[in-house]
Amino acid sequence: MTKKITRRDAVRIFGAVAGTSLLNSALGFKAIAAETAKGATDSSFPWPYTKLDSDQIAERAYKGYYEGHCMYGAFEAIVGAVADKKGGEPFKSFPYKMMKYGAGGVGDWASLCGALNGAAAAIALFVAEPKPLIDELFGWYEKEPLPNYKPKNPKFDIQTSVAASVLCHQSVTNWCKKAGKKAFSPERSERCAWITASVAKFTTEILNHHFAGTFKAAYPIPADVAKCRGCHDKGGSIENTRGKMGCTSCHPNTDKTHKEL
Amino acid sequence: MTKKITRRDAVRIFGAVAGTSLLNSALGFKAIAAETAKGATDSSFPWPYTKLDSDQIAERAYKGYYEGHCMYGAFEAIVGAVADKKGGEPFKSFPYKMMKYGAGGVGDWASLCGALNGAAAAIALFVAEPKPLIDELFGWYEKEPLPNYKPKNPKFDIQTSVAASVLCHQSVTNWCKKAGKKAFSPERSERCAWITASVAKFTTEILNHHFAGTFKAAYPIPADVAKCRGCHDKGGSIENTRGKMGCTSCHPNTDKTHKEL
Repeated sequence: MTKKITRRDAVRIFGAVAGTSLLNSALGFKAIAAETAKGATDSSFPWPYTKLDSDQIAERAYKGYYEGHCMYGAFEAIVGAVADKKGGEPFKSFPYKMMKYGAGGVGDWASLCGALNGAAAAIALFVAEPKPLIDELFGWYEKEPLPNYKPKNPKFDIQTSVAASVLCHQSVTNWCKKAGKKAFSPERSERCAWITASVAKFTTEILNHHFAGTFKAAYPIPADVAKCRGCHDKGGSIENTRGKMGCTSCHPNTDKTHKEL
Repeated sequence: MTKKITRRDAVRIFGAVAGTSLLNSALGFKAIAAETAKGATDSSFPWPYTKLDSDQIAERAYKGYYEGHCMYGAFEAIVGAVADKKGGEPFKSFPYKMMKYGAGGVGDWASLCGALNGAAAAIALFVAEPKPLIDELFGWYEKEPLPNYKPKNPKFDIQTSVAASVLCHQSVTNWCKKAGKKAFSPERSERCAWITASVAKFTTEILNHHFAGTFKAAYPIPADVAKCRGCHDKGGSIENTRGKMGCTSCHPNTDKTHKEL
């Protein structure tokens, strides 16, 4: 299972992270060095990123949605585009089709939005410490009226809505109510294709910024969620939960519940 | 990007699926043939599975949790064990560490349970039509008192609880309430390590059954969820949602809400 890293590999990998901020370069190199010592299978992890055109990625994700749904669409657009630029292994052997499992919030369970699941996986493939970028992506998704990318050749015109959650269920239902369309209508599919494109575009932008050393988070945890977390999350007096998802979409009667206690 | 399949490859791949049911063999071979024609990058998808010992996988997942958290633990235990038996590519190049992103319901957002996210990905890597197996796994997870696997050398003794949801948030919070432990306590980490082991074990069992042609679903959609879906899901009069998650953990006042309408 050991894979030797040659001098040429080291130069290639180091070159790929050379455009990142000093911190990320250091993290990347540290990860590579640690893996080499361990002789792990994924010895060049994280994989090298290259700057992408976010509009091109959005179009690819829109097309990808109709080939393999939301998770596949977002993941393949980003990682497949890097693969096209880099060529060869390890990109060539990656089982992109595996990512179809995230469709409809994983196997149609309507849990995590598949576009977010795929985009988070793509971020984690390229970034040693992916959490700040995932926080930014998920925070943006909960708050912004989406989709905010219109593909060049759309099937329908699509209304925006605010998901107020990272879950497929709320995201879809809030849109259905706003647009007056059914959950299994072709318009809803088109809306999720636009969402996939929008998520892939935003993810590409934050990846580009991250590797250019210009990433700045603009979507912190909202004040109402931070208030709940004050008691319920890490270090709080109750500390009986974790997470950063919006609270009130599932707990709308929070004030009432608190008064009853 | 084209990868030719040699006669030897075809024999190897066909041999790997030969132990499956007739349907799965047919599906697998059809997928391979289709990919060859298209010249896609992941030309031997889905990847070949081999029967695993579910207790060994549970132990590996328990250990993996402490190396890379829940999603990595479940995925690496199953796919890594197949990789150890098969050796070489494409397993060798797979970026297992990418799966760390699912920790704490993806980047600590407490959305989909990471053990389920990783196990679903593993199922989708080996099974062309993964939904029935994902349905079984997710249905089991919502209903059963878990964890139901105790590792050989546990750090603590762990109480069981019923998640009633596939989401990290409910799963963790329900356990915290039952066990009287905090969400960031070492006992909660140990509980999630046992959960990762339990999920990996159950997933291995259903994969083994699937490829032996003996898989039978035992966790259909519960009656209360089916009742809600009757109006709200595909083909229903309202059809404003999708999904199979338990409804009442987020909508406890369903009867009241319906009366008010």
